[in-house]
Amino acid sequence: MSQPPAPITLAEIVAAVARFRDDRDWAQFHTPKNLAAAIAIEAAELQERLLWKTDAEVDQDLADAAKKAGVAEEIADVVMFAMLLSDRLGIDLAEAIAAKLVENGKKYPVRLARGNARKYTELGGG
Amino acid sequence: MSQPPAPITLAEIVAAVARFRDDRDWAQFHTPKNLAAAIAIEAAELQERLLWKTDAEVDQDLADAAKKAGVAEEIADVVMFAMLLSDRLGIDLAEAIAAKLVENGKKYPVRLARGNARKYTELGGG
Amino acid sequence: MSQPPAPITLAEIVAAVARFRDDRDWAQFHTPKNLAAAIAIEAAELQERLLWKTDAEVDQDLADAAKKAGVAEEIADVVMFAMLLSDRLGIDLAEAIAAKLVENGKKYPVRLARGNARKYTELGGG
Amino acid sequence: MSQPPAPITLAEIVAAVARFRDDRDWAQFHTPKNLAAAIAIEAAELQERLLWKTDAEVDQDLADAAKKAGVAEEIADVVMFAMLLSDRLGIDLAEAIAAKLVENGKKYPVRLARGNARKYTELGGG
Repeated sequence: MSQPPAPITLAEIVAAVARFRDDRDWAQFHTPKNLAAAIAIEAAELQERLLWKTDAEVDQDLADAAKKAGVAEEIADVVMFAMLLSDRLGIDLAEAIAAKLVENGKKYPVRLARGNARKYTELGGG
Repeated sequence: MSQPPAPITLAEIVAAVARFRDDRDWAQFHTPKNLAAAIAIEAAELQERLLWKTDAEVDQDLADAAKKAGVAEEIADVVMFAMLLSDRLGIDLAEAIAAKLVENGKKYPVRLARGNARKYTELGGG
Repeated sequence: MSQPPAPITLAEIVAAVARFRDDRDWAQFHTPKNLAAAIAIEAAELQERLLWKTDAEVDQDLADAAKKAGVAEEIADVVMFAMLLSDRLGIDLAEAIAAKLVENGKKYPVRLARGNARKYTELGGG
Repeated sequence: MSQPPAPITLAEIVAAVARFRDDRDWAQFHTPKNLAAAIAIEAAELQERLLWKTDAEVDQDLADAAKKAGVAEEIADVVMFAMLLSDRLGIDLAEAIAAKLVENGKKYPVRLARGNARKYTELGGG
């Protein structure tokens, strides 16, 4: 009897994305500045799919499987370039996220941040 | 004798980021349009850390641990908002990336794409 | 009796912005890629001032003179870097805008585009 | 004998762009958040035209009239949306730029800023 597949780790996904790059010998183009620009460009393509629509129209659009898949592609593009930049810089992305959650937890303690969207500089705790 | 920690899965990281959000009751602010804008904003903060520098100066900067950590934070921010948008839309991010790699593999076959940075529309295979 | 000041031309503003750059000997940093990144970064700073707010909250914010001035600064930053890129590339910005309006007029004829926000590829005229 | 055309003022260009919008009854879609996103999206399209290229390759590309015209279009798009946002918010763009130049002049005095690209927070004057 076969086991269910082991859940995929973040490191495995980064490795797959890096392998795609290396198969095409693309690392030579992947300067940090280019990769950062690529992330911004993909983020804009994501925004473009939602532009001019109200929130209700966006929700309606995203009930359509093809439109949702299009948005999923743009999100994937953003994350893949972020992975490639992490890889290029020798940054462990899982660790970086864990560290950022700890830091954000200090900036935004539940007691002060709960239910409001104020920036930490305006939370006025003490 | 203790085992090494199991490698962290992408789904576990997404769950941790979503829990951070829910502890603060922030989902109410997380419309798709706001999250897409947040991704773009974090991408720009990443770009800003590299702006006006040559590639050599960027490499030199990133040899400094504090500067590298700053860049890692921005990358983490980008990916965390991408995870929150995936979560908001019911998109499995690992699947979305896997699907995009397959699609990109068709657009950029190794034979045509290797060693050049042309867009797939200009690869001219056949 | 003094005359009212002559209205300022676009070319005069571009010249003032270029002079600011030259007084500081900054043209050496203004590669096209850096300037394009700078435009994107300023655009994101503009977006950040509106993030997490509803449209009604944005309107309320912008009734506050200081907050409106802050937004005006970001818009000015975007346009100034666009002017610097035009200047760097020898593009006449007034002509470029005039040409784009003509082109957009063809893509979006009033008859088809009036009152809807569809992209020109989906206008379905004939 | 005809006179040369009077140079075009910034206000005239803004008026032409606003008229284009009004002819199509598009103001209804032009919330500040949408316009800010539109600026960011056009900025990204501009960046995309330069991505993966070295500075030398960009210069070579821009010696080609069609490629230069493509870049000019993206710059025009950025500035037109910035004009539409100014118009929407009742901001005088020429005044905003003049004010920003004054402010930047204080942040970046020629004596300290000349020939370097450091941020004003790191200029260390006194």
